[in-house]
Amino acid sequence: MTNDWLDEVNWDADGLVPAIAQEVTTGKVLMLAWMNREALSATVKEGRAVYWSRSRARLWRKGEESGNVQIVKEVRLDCDNDAVLLVVEQQGGIACHTGRERCFHQQLAKDHWTPVEPILRDPGEIYRKK
Amino acid sequence: MTNDWLDEVNWDADGLVPAIAQEVTTGKVLMLAWMNREALSATVKEGRAVYWSRSRARLWRKGEESGNVQIVKEVRLDCDNDAVLLVVEQQGGIACHTGRERCFHQQLAKDHWTPVEPILRDPGEIYRKK
Repeated sequence: MTNDWLDEVNWDADGLVPAIAQEVTTGKVLMLAWMNREALSATVKEGRAVYWSRSRARLWRKGEESGNVQIVKEVRLDCDNDAVLLVVEQQGGIACHTGRERCFHQQLAKDHWTPVEPILRDPGEIYRKK
Repeated sequence: MTNDWLDEVNWDADGLVPAIAQEVTTGKVLMLAWMNREALSATVKEGRAVYWSRSRARLWRKGEESGNVQIVKEVRLDCDNDAVLLVVEQQGGIACHTGRERCFHQQLAKDHWTPVEPILRDPGEIYRKK
């Protein structure tokens, strides 16, 4: 397997591209995260979503702590080669660290962002210390 | 209408956030573009997707040339306040400047990005000179 496909991605000045995760069954857009070359390569190799955590400055295997792994069904690139779309099976049904189904849980209603997705599981329980 | 909701967005160092457009009827993820404060404000005020074109360094009212306007049905913000999701009605059924239904038209198959969405209309026809 050559790495030409990785060279074709238009990485930004920080070597990153935004990656959208969409749930394969529900069609819901779960989250947007970032990938560097290593993250995208690992995602494809391992068949699970691996992002680059900008805050922690390290690879982030989605679900590594929570168990809420994203199994990758499809990887797409857009027309400018600078955005990635993952179609995933969201294990555990929770993509968001707040314990919600998805990260896009605030909806604009008049002039306020209003949480519209229920908390399915207490984050303290999801990320409990071992 | 106050602008507090605009202040709550975590704009990046360039004053931008990535914005995903998803089609309301089909659920398909159409594209990812960028918004500055003015673009997001205009999107909400006008009820149509307005992005910030980084290449042209100006506001870009989606469909201004092609007529393929995105009517905004829902605006969402993610848990970190740094990504926007628009649920839109894609007029004309074409989001991509290549004449395809959506910008995410390249799918990774083995080690190649393969175009998997048909060209619905010749771009030369969409963007014909007046």
